[in-house]
Amino acid sequence: MTATLIDGTAIAADVRQSIAARVAELSAATGRKPGLATVLVGEDPASQAYVRMKGKNCLEVGMESFSYKLPADSTQEEVEGLVRDLNANPAVNGILVQLPLPKHLDEEAILGAISLEKDVDGFHPVNIGRLVMKGRKPLFIPCTPKGCMVLLERSGVKLEGANAVVLGRSNIVGMPVAALLLHANATVTTCHSRSKDLRAICSEADVLVAAVGRAGMVRGDWIKPGAVVIDVGVNRVDDASRKSGYRLVGDVNFDEAVEVAGMITPVPGGVGPMTIAMLLQNTLDAFERTV
Amino acid sequence: MTATLIDGTAIAADVRQSIAARVAELSAATGRKPGLATVLVGEDPASQAYVRMKGKNCLEVGMESFSYKLPADSTQEEVEGLVRDLNANPAVNGILVQLPLPKHLDEEAILGAISLEKDVDGFHPVNIGRLVMKGRKPLFIPCTPKGCMVLLERSGVKLEGANAVVLGRSNIVGMPVAALLLHANATVTTCHSRSKDLRAICSEADVLVAAVGRAGMVRGDWIKPGAVVIDVGVNRVDDASRKSGYRLVGDVNFDEAVEVAGMITPVPGGVGPMTIAMLLQNTLDAFERTV
Repeated sequence: MTATLIDGTAIAADVRQSIAARVAELSAATGRKPGLATVLVGEDPASQAYVRMKGKNCLEVGMESFSYKLPADSTQEEVEGLVRDLNANPAVNGILVQLPLPKHLDEEAILGAISLEKDVDGFHPVNIGRLVMKGRKPLFIPCTPKGCMVLLERSGVKLEGANAVVLGRSNIVGMPVAALLLHANATVTTCHSRSKDLRAICSEADVLVAAVGRAGMVRGDWIKPGAVVIDVGVNRVDDASRKSGYRLVGDVNFDEAVEVAGMITPVPGGVGPMTIAMLLQNTLDAFERTV
Repeated sequence: MTATLIDGTAIAADVRQSIAARVAELSAATGRKPGLATVLVGEDPASQAYVRMKGKNCLEVGMESFSYKLPADSTQEEVEGLVRDLNANPAVNGILVQLPLPKHLDEEAILGAISLEKDVDGFHPVNIGRLVMKGRKPLFIPCTPKGCMVLLERSGVKLEGANAVVLGRSNIVGMPVAALLLHANATVTTCHSRSKDLRAICSEADVLVAAVGRAGMVRGDWIKPGAVVIDVGVNRVDDASRKSGYRLVGDVNFDEAVEVAGMITPVPGGVGPMTIAMLLQNTLDAFERTV
């Protein structure tokens, strides 16, 4: 058996196209454009690349991009001051503070300072609280978990009554994706580094979301035949055959899993492109609320 | 095999005794007492009984109790106005709006109007957001889930690596107790009315928390031999032999379960008394932050 690939690149392109069309429509009607501000503190190369890519994607769908770079030794007050300025700036509809922040900064206070209406990452505790509660609606759903759900939906995966297993319990992926799967009426198990017999737990999953950050940890025999596998991991492994010296792999051993699963997302080209597409969607939603 | 009973009445009495001792100490030092305000809208007899019991328990541990009763047809503005007055009242450390509210009121807005520092029920979205996020601390943990955790802790139940199954996904019990079990490093499965084969899921549980509101739904053969069973359900069933015409039973068929489980909470006398004890604890914590 060879699994069907869930093509995140194609689905994300389709989403971006719809966003671009809506942005064009709204811009023509209002003379304004949705704007996303990114805040990068420090010089981390991966974070620089992410922020650059987010800016580029904004422009491609007709949005404005505002890029703020602060030195690594910025004070708490300097970062929060910038966030407050952006809260007050009507040209900015979404504010994204790139994580991780330098260790000396209080991440919780900085994310909590972002206006709820501009919290396009969806990490404000009020948004998370509303996300996990039944009958409440967050203003924004965090981008990666939202991207996972769109991939499942566009692939026609039935979640109601399905056994969903989430491997990993991070604030950014594991916890919110578990909440979304539960709202979609799946039975949801969250497992993690302290769980016993991860293989046995994962092998019961009709839908398996791996978000643990360990290259190739999920082996073929962890997967129930025919299961849907969403691989959120992005891990660098050494590869002398590449000019860069490394390649990106997921948390799932793809070559083994593809022989067992029913559907699977590749890495790269699965969840990754969806994250940015959902960020654009959230920024558009924020803009729509102001027009 | 006959399960050990987890005696919630005795554990709650012990907790209340510690609270009373601390209240006496603080009152002697400050000349003030912790105060809990309850807000009851309408005439629901069960809600009236709950509110009365909460007030009585406050007095027993040396706290002040403020009881507010509003007519069933109160407007949103009237209820929110009362909440704002209580937020501003320094004699009030905790505010409890008794649920359910009459249908015409916006529960989310009313609970959201309670000052975070006085949200002793722990239902404010910021408290819930912080509760479910790793590395964040809510000001208050909702009382029933917190009571379940204290019962497990005082009974010496090892949660790390255990398979915990939560039956039910309510905002008040299922969702927050699942978050607390996950923070305690259990592997956590949430199942519910749309899950397939609840019996099979529950029978894998080392720790089973039933919070679904269906009398005796969990049968003996749903329980893994030796498992710890926490029964949150409080359901009325007809009983002609009682003067009241009914008796209270849990979500678990106790007579069957007690023969299979390793430990089990009875109903009544299990989780119930803990809920009020935790409310008193939260009110004391709120007061301690002001002294």
